[in-house]
Amino acid sequence: MIRDATPEDWPAIWPFFHRIVRAGETFTYPVDLAADTARDWWLLTAPNRTVVAVDEDGTVLGTAKMNNNQWGNGAHIASASFMVDPDRTGRGTGRALCEHALQWARQQGFHAMQFNAVVATNAPAVHLYESLGFRVLGTVPEGFRHPVHGPVGLHIMHRPL
Amino acid sequence: MIRDATPEDWPAIWPFFHRIVRAGETFTYPVDLAADTARDWWLLTAPNRTVVAVDEDGTVLGTAKMNNNQWGNGAHIASASFMVDPDRTGRGTGRALCEHALQWARQQGFHAMQFNAVVATNAPAVHLYESLGFRVLGTVPEGFRHPVHGPVGLHIMHRPL
Repeated sequence: MIRDATPEDWPAIWPFFHRIVRAGETFTYPVDLAADTARDWWLLTAPNRTVVAVDEDGTVLGTAKMNNNQWGNGAHIASASFMVDPDRTGRGTGRALCEHALQWARQQGFHAMQFNAVVATNAPAVHLYESLGFRVLGTVPEGFRHPVHGPVGLHIMHRPL
Repeated sequence: MIRDATPEDWPAIWPFFHRIVRAGETFTYPVDLAADTARDWWLLTAPNRTVVAVDEDGTVLGTAKMNNNQWGNGAHIASASFMVDPDRTGRGTGRALCEHALQWARQQGFHAMQFNAVVATNAPAVHLYESLGFRVLGTVPEGFRHPVHGPVGLHIMHRPL
């Protein structure tokens, strides 16, 4: 089940959010991002949106934020970011969140969705996005310093809506 | 001459900044961007930087801001934005500002510079950047709704340093 995130969800989001960001393998966020800053970055307000995916017991499995990628005459293209609790993967949460974001963007009247910084070695994310109709518009060479793999590409991915 | 911008420069920047943004042909900023918000967006502080180009009389001809394009493990790539007073073009101000930004980024230890949203119909900018070694990594199809030309591409441009 996917529902709007509230500030009360933050204590359930932050542990896995922190773990993912601190690992520094998939997000271009500061690896030492503080909880308060992270909450301000992640919990968006209308017309943008942040959701959580929860299981039958109400446990938060993952979260997504969705927003305009640019402003002004570029504001008709959406963007989104996704995090799934690494201890609760394999249940289709990432796909459900991404499908939800695409539906939201369509309903909001966006013309396309764009991701600005998909780490090329993040194969599960790249494959998920491709399976949902995204394609790589371009790749920033060595745009990401992966803590294990070293300098790797950062994909810009896009799909029309 | 290019020097650091100060808050005291804002009254000289805002008239042409406003004119450029309101025209909506080259920036993905809200066309009705308020002066206070614009000042906060444009006048960056260290380690990022904002400069003005001035002539012999101290008249502001243009301005540039330069900053990291991402954070964390993507923070080694810089970005920059440039505005030249439309009434004072043709004096090489844009080129001087761009060369200055490249030099700054090199000195700061950035590995590359990336522009995220270069309007494809902004030929002077695209040609300037290409002449300075940038290439188009990819183009967001119809990523910009040009008020005259309609939907046009938004280039992501990049050059190693």
